[in-house]
Amino acid sequence: MPIRRLPDRAQHEIDQLYAVLDGAWVGTLSVVVPGETARVQSVPILYGRVGDAVIFHGSTGAGTLRLLASGAEATFCVSILDGFVYAASLFESSANYRSAVVAGPVEVLAGTAAEDAVVALSERVMPGRPAEVRSSTRKELAATTVLRMPIASAEWTVKVRTGGVGEEPDADPTVWRGVLPVTTAFGAPVPEPGQHGIPLSPSISRRLATKQ
Amino acid sequence: MPIRRLPDRAQHEIDQLYAVLDGAWVGTLSVVVPGETARVQSVPILYGRVGDAVIFHGSTGAGTLRLLASGAEATFCVSILDGFVYAASLFESSANYRSAVVAGPVEVLAGTAAEDAVVALSERVMPGRPAEVRSSTRKELAATTVLRMPIASAEWTVKVRTGGVGEEPDADPTVWRGVLPVTTAFGAPVPEPGQHGIPLSPSISRRLATKQ
Repeated sequence: MPIRRLPDRAQHEIDQLYAVLDGAWVGTLSVVVPGETARVQSVPILYGRVGDAVIFHGSTGAGTLRLLASGAEATFCVSILDGFVYAASLFESSANYRSAVVAGPVEVLAGTAAEDAVVALSERVMPGRPAEVRSSTRKELAATTVLRMPIASAEWTVKVRTGGVGEEPDADPTVWRGVLPVTTAFGAPVPEPGQHGIPLSPSISRRLATKQ
Repeated sequence: MPIRRLPDRAQHEIDQLYAVLDGAWVGTLSVVVPGETARVQSVPILYGRVGDAVIFHGSTGAGTLRLLASGAEATFCVSILDGFVYAASLFESSANYRSAVVAGPVEVLAGTAAEDAVVALSERVMPGRPAEVRSSTRKELAATTVLRMPIASAEWTVKVRTGGVGEEPDADPTVWRGVLPVTTAFGAPVPEPGQHGIPLSPSISRRLATKQ
């Protein structure tokens, strides 16, 4: 699929992009490291889509975030593996997946915009948690780089493969063909050692109930 | 952690790298796109660690693989989210994860080396499946680019965060703190429509039993 900018894209494609971005919590953030031979630096990073932007945050000391804050373009890739597609040949075997790649400039946020973005990102990663804990302090915010990547000024692709194996004209009819789904689930919450009698936070109970 | 080359690394670090690479099936493969302003092209890709190398394959038409085959260096990032770390502040909240970033040149494989690598990669992604299906044809292999990234000539980092929240001196004692584990599981196999009475392949039964 050729990369095109947002204004050219149909709403259903934008909806699909947002759905893929909202379906994961970690992606790979990459940047070109300037130098004699340009090379790519990649880091896995927690993120959140907030409106028409992707928000990242991290320590002010983190190399990739520093490069981005100083003007380098970001390439951000999210992928979710939904299943293994078992065909009757290795060539036709495949995977069901959802992926998004968003590439473009980022803005450095400061002040209340940075604070709001940290809360919004946290709400994506840990729904309901920001309301259960204290606000960030000035010192904490000063130690945090907060970046906003506007999707409207980015180039992006979204790809989704679903369904079964499909046609395989010469498939051995004795070989099982089909899909083995891969799913993500939450395990039982593990309280911090030494913490006694404190009930599980409502945000986590809700998360376990809704599996999000 | 500073990036260092393989000969400098302790065996336990190499073991940890291999374990992280073996713990996932999809990673993000990135390359610098040459041009006036160098930018990063990223794609999610199935892969397999085979001995001291990471194997990739894809259509000969795929842009990223073509750039790599023509000599560009690859940066490959794998990350596995193991849990959300709920602290009593957003700042101390975190995630448990395992990640690896491997950057270096790749070799293009041909002939029996390519065929063997396709089988070995498939064995990683779908254990036991290569023995259940026919061999790849010459035509199929000719349509496939197979790349090998030797870890010995790459730069790499491996990072693992495990455990709980840790010290939070001023934590509100009424707020639950701990870890919400995230796990990956297999769903019930979905046979291809129209396929009747063919038993599930032994490789998939084993996979369901061993959860790998």
